Parts: sequence; structure tokens; C-alpha cells
Amino acid sequence: MVRDRQLRAARLLKERRLACAVFADPASTVYLTGYVPPVETGPSPFEGGPPLVVLTADGGALLIVSDIEEPAARGRATVDEVIAYRAYSPSENLPREDGYREALMQALDKARFRGGALGIEGAVPHHATAWVAQVFRGAEFTSVSECLNPIRMVKDSDEVAAIRKAADISVAGQRAVRQLVRPGLSEVELFAAVRGQMEQAFGRRLPVLADLVSGPRSAEVGGAPSSRTVGEGEVVLVDLVPCVDGYWGDTCVTVFLGPAPEAELRQAHRVVVEALQKGIEAVKPGMTASELDAIVRGHVRKFGYDYPHHTGHGVGTTWHEGPRIVAGDRTVLRPGMVIALEPGVYVDGRFGVRVEDLLLVTESGAEVLSHHDKSLIVP
Amino acid sequence: MVRDRQLRAARLLKERRLACAVFADPASTVYLTGYVPPVETGPSPFEGGPPLVVLTADGGALLIVSDIEEPAARGRATVDEVIAYRAYSPSENLPREDGYREALMQALDKARFRGGALGIEGAVPHHATAWVAQVFRGAEFTSVSECLNPIRMVKDSDEVAAIRKAADISVAGQRAVRQLVRPGLSEVELFAAVRGQMEQAFGRRLPVLADLVSGPRSAEVGGAPSSRTVGEGEVVLVDLVPCVDGYWGDTCVTVFLGPAPEAELRQAHRVVVEALQKGIEAVKPGMTASELDAIVRGHVRKFGYDYPHHTGHGVGTTWHEGPRIVAGDRTVLRPGMVIALEPGVYVDGRFGVRVEDLLLVTESGAEVLSHHDKSLIVP
Repeated sequence: MVRDRQLRAARLLKERRLACAVFADPASTVYLTGYVPPVETGPSPFEGGPPLVVLTADGGALLIVSDIEEPAARGRATVDEVIAYRAYSPSENLPREDGYREALMQALDKARFRGGALGIEGAVPHHATAWVAQVFRGAEFTSVSECLNPIRMVKDSDEVAAIRKAADISVAGQRAVRQLVRPGLSEVELFAAVRGQMEQAFGRRLPVLADLVSGPRSAEVGGAPSSRTVGEGEVVLVDLVPCVDGYWGDTCVTVFLGPAPEAELRQAHRVVVEALQKGIEAVKPGMTASELDAIVRGHVRKFGYDYPHHTGHGVGTTWHEGPRIVAGDRTVLRPGMVIALEPGVYVDGRFGVRVEDLLLVTESGAEVLSHHDKSLIVP
Repeated sequence: MVRDRQLRAARLLKERRLACAVFADPASTVYLTGYVPPVETGPSPFEGGPPLVVLTADGGALLIVSDIEEPAARGRATVDEVIAYRAYSPSENLPREDGYREALMQALDKARFRGGALGIEGAVPHHATAWVAQVFRGAEFTSVSECLNPIRMVKDSDEVAAIRKAADISVAGQRAVRQLVRPGLSEVELFAAVRGQMEQAFGRRLPVLADLVSGPRSAEVGGAPSSRTVGEGEVVLVDLVPCVDGYWGDTCVTVFLGPAPEAELRQAHRVVVEALQKGIEAVKPGMTASELDAIVRGHVRKFGYDYPHHTGHGVGTTWHEGPRIVAGDRTVLRPGMVIALEPGVYVDGRFGVRVEDLLLVTESGAEVLSHHDKSLIVP
């Protein structure tokens, strides 16, 4: 629950002897408050900067937002106080930054910050920190960027519920891929229809990260949908990562358009499906991320293939976080971690194949959160 | 052209006695380099921060991007040098911020920054400025946030060309609205189909800001498409703002589903269409934004209505910029400015009506960049 996450983050501040810290990454805002800042159209020209979370070492949490975001923030955030600044009005030409940093000063005051060490997470705008430095002459900033990463890896039950929903939406997208894909559609046309199905399933717009590449483009591992027309006898690789209420889902399939894929494509697809299955069966609390990478990648290598990317990654308030399922990550898997596994095979100039499931690490193994048809042929 | 914009921005630095400045807003990156940073899925967990532009008072320009963005940046940016840092690799666990700030130090070195005053545009991550402050003991940061606003108002010919394309895409979306809207569709279903048509017209995904509200929701001025089903005898208000190659287009229509809108709705629609037309005819270089507001708003007020928002706004690398077409903005209109005009009428609990065109201020008046059917009835 949000309050548990605030307390967990507060303990991190205490360990670093910080009485207070300011977080600016939207992923941290979701994690620490439950409020989901909009991202799809970039920084708002109406606002002084991204929403800020001021957290104290005793677990106090304040959220700074513009008055435009205020209603949504009040509806969603679990914090001691939402502090809103006036961002824009048709009758005044407000210097947006003034309101923003006044709100930050107000929050620091309520957080009883009196100078000294202040944690700062990366994207706090400089005009705001400069103002703090000027008012609190003795303020010393210290980066707490990425400090939440370790605690974010193991999800709370409300986070798992949110990710389940995101996985369901991603799976709805994969269902739409099978229903809609056909030769003659462009990649972007297929993508738009698939995203539309995901948004309809959810009832609102969704940020969506996606690879959608067809034919020889699929050998390039990923890429945004283009105007390329999908042809008969080609593969289409579709990786769908929608953000549902601040948490991301992640699945991938590769489908073939036609009745008779060539033998090597059939084998490559069989190998990656097997590798994924072996990974799912191998997941156990106590094993390391690197051991899991070796099992999945090892199966693909046995057939003379490999993939130039990670075997998988954690998923949460960002679309990619710890643990990284790579050779170099010794993180021990623990119940409550949510990981995506996505082995692939890519044959230059010809085709690429990837399949991906989203898993919850449980006490005894893994629960698959994504149940989508991963077969190669579209009937 | 990009080089002209760099020189224009460099003159601003000179006026402020700054030898060098760092810009972090994606809108500034587009304006100063031509490279369009992706925004749709929020800050990338692979990167140390947003792309940065380092600009010198003699017009030198450097662009800092991750190696993930590097190919796109090299393809699009007009700068003296693209400096790429390693952001993520499956074989190493790189501290992303280290590469980011090393790239910034490298850029400052190439820009011959040796300490002293350094301009900073808002969103430069604090870990990077802190590093600069540590290396250059005498560095003094000064905010240059919003300093580009005045020069951004008058567009270069390449910018006008880009906005024309964005206006065309927005108009393609409005055509799709008329073709697709029908009772029984949900707002989000309609929106997804409309955005799909815009993306197909462009051949790639597009960031899109949009209002899509139906029935009594339209009286709320704006809002994201919801799961609400559009009904017979209702209005649908659709404001479409797609970003095409870094520049935004902006149009709005209100359509009625059925043969016989009530008299007050018909009148409200007629009044806003007339107000928009009066605004288009009134635009002349030399008039102020506030005079234009008075003409458009004045026409609506003559009929006992008003709207609780601006009459319009500039459009460019942000979806809202100067001049603001409001009572308090004395900015003098000049050829090359691009403005959206969007009068409306909103009747609580019943309906809202708004129409919007995108205009280029010319030597003698205004050229309408958006030619879309603004009639109330969908045949």
C-alpha cells in the first residue's frame, strides 16, 4: 500500500541521514503517492515543472502539483497534503516557476526542513533547487536518484493487482493482433487498431510503449510501427507495453501470415517458446537473476542462436526496472517481484522471433500474469 | 532554419552576458536542434535525463543524447556535434547518470566553458548541475527558463512548413471524426479510430493532445475521451492537437448527432463560428493579442455568452505558447506568428460548443492553415 511504500522510502532516507528528500520522476510519484502524472504529450507549457513529492525520514509525504492537476491528484494521491500552485489563468500572465517554487518552499516548511542535507531525485528543475539553496543558505543537496530502485523490486499487493490489470490489457492487445492482422495493413494501421482495442478494454487512453515490426524489419529486434505494409508470408513481431493507472504491462508475440512458414522460422519460434517455458518453470525464490538468464539464454544457445538483449527485466511504475535478467545481475529473486521474460532469435535480413510473458515470483515458483496465445500461425 | 534559431538564441545569451547555457525542455531541443525527443512514455529508465542542448553565445550548439537516441539524433539534429553517452547495455550495469554528466562535462569543455555564469533551462537534472558546480568551483547558475519564449513566437519558414503538416494531420483527424462518429460508439473508441487515421495519414505514431467530450460532458470545456457512449441527439466536441516532427497542430469542431439540434445549440454554434470568422478577418500585423481577444470574445458576449478560457494561443514546439490571445496580452501580432483561435459557448449540464482554426499571421492579415468542415450537423 502507498503508506507502506512511503515508510519504506523513509527508512532509506534515514539510512542516508537525510531528514527530507524531493522526488521528481513520474515513476517515483506513482510509487510514493498513487497519483499518475500525465506524460504522453511531454512537459506541460502550463506548469512550472513535474509534480514533486517531498518525503520526510519519519514517513511524511507531500505532493506538489499545479491547480490543473489538483483534482486528479486529490482523487488519487495518498499523502498528508496536496499542495497546488496556480499554473495558468486566462486573466493573468503568471510566472509559472514562481508558484512552483513557492509551493516547494511551503512543502519543505511543512516537512520541517530547516537547512542541511536535502535529497534530490534527478529531474527536480534547477530553478527550484536554486531557490531552496538561496533561502536555506546551509542546504546541501545530495542525489537520491535511483535510491528507490532496490525497494521497488518487490511489489506490494496493490501493485501486483495494478500490474495484473496492465497485463490483462496487454493480453487484450495481443488478442486484437491475432484478430486484426492481415496482409495489406500497414504496421501503424495495425498498431492503431490494436491500441484502440486496449484503450476500449480499459475505457480510457493509455500510454503505450510498443515494438511493431514486420518482415525483415523484425530482425532488427524492435522499432516503432512504420508505414510499411505487412505482406503475406511475413512475420509480425508485436511487443505491447501499456501503462494502466501508473503500472506497466509487457507481453510479446510473433505471428506468421500464411499457412507455411519456412523450417528455420518454425524452429526458431519453437526454440524461443521452449526457452520461455523453461524460464517460467525455473523461476524460484532464492535463485539469482543471472542464473535465470543462463537457463533461458542457454536453451536458445543450444540451437546455435542467441539474442543481443537482456533475457528479461522487472516491471512496475517504469517499463523496465530491477531485477535485470542478465548475466551480470546477482539479484536474488524474491516473492513479489514481477519480471518479464522475453527470449528471441533474430536472423539478419530475414526474420526475428520473440515471445514474452509477465511473471509474478511466488513463494514456490512463478505465476504467469499474461495468458496469451503465442503460437506462430494466425488461423 | 535551425542555424538561424541558434544564432537568435545566442544573441539572447549575449544580452544576458552568458557565454553558455544548457537547455533541457524537449520543446527547446526541437527548436534549437531539429531533433525530436520522444515523450509519449515518460522519462526513459535507460537514460540519465532528458537530451540536453549546450548553446554558446557565439552560436555554437551541442546535443547530448543517449546512445539509444543517437542514430535518430544524428539523422535529425543540425548541431556542431552530437555527444552520446552509453545508457544501457545488457552486459553492464552502467550508472546512467555518470555517462550523462560526463557527456555534459565534455560538451561544456567543447563549448569552452571555464566557470562563471551558466544559463540553465528548468529541467536539467540536479545531479548534472551539482557535478558542474563541483568541477567548476566558480560556476554560477542562472535560469534561462522561458527565455526563448519571445523569439519562438515568430516562426521561420521551415517551422511554418512543419506546422502546416501538423495542421493537415489535425484536419485529417477532423475528417475522420465526421466519417466515423455515430451513436453507440464510446468516446475512447471514437478517439482511437480518429487518432489511427491521423497516424495512418502520417505513417508513424504521433503524440496527440485531445479533448473528446460528448453530451453534457461537452459543457465542461474539455477532457480526455472516456468510456461514455455517445448518444443520438448529443453533441461531440473534438479538439485534436497532434505533434508532427516536433511541431503541433490544433483544430476543434463540435458536431451534433441527429437531424434536429435544439434552437439554443444551433444559435450557440452559429455565434462561435461567426466569432471565429470575425477573428480571422480581424487579424493584422500591428494589432495586439488583447485587441484580437476583444473582437472574438466581444462577438460571443453580444449574444449573452462567454467562455472561461483564452480566445487562443500561439502554437509551435509546444502546444501552447505566445502570443496568448487574452485580455491581458499586449503582444503585437507580427507576420510569421502562428495562432489558434478557439471561441466557445458552454451551457452547464446541457452542451458545449467550440470551433478552432490555426492561422498564420501574414504581411496583410491571416492565412488559415486548417481547412476543415466546421458545420454542426453530420450528414
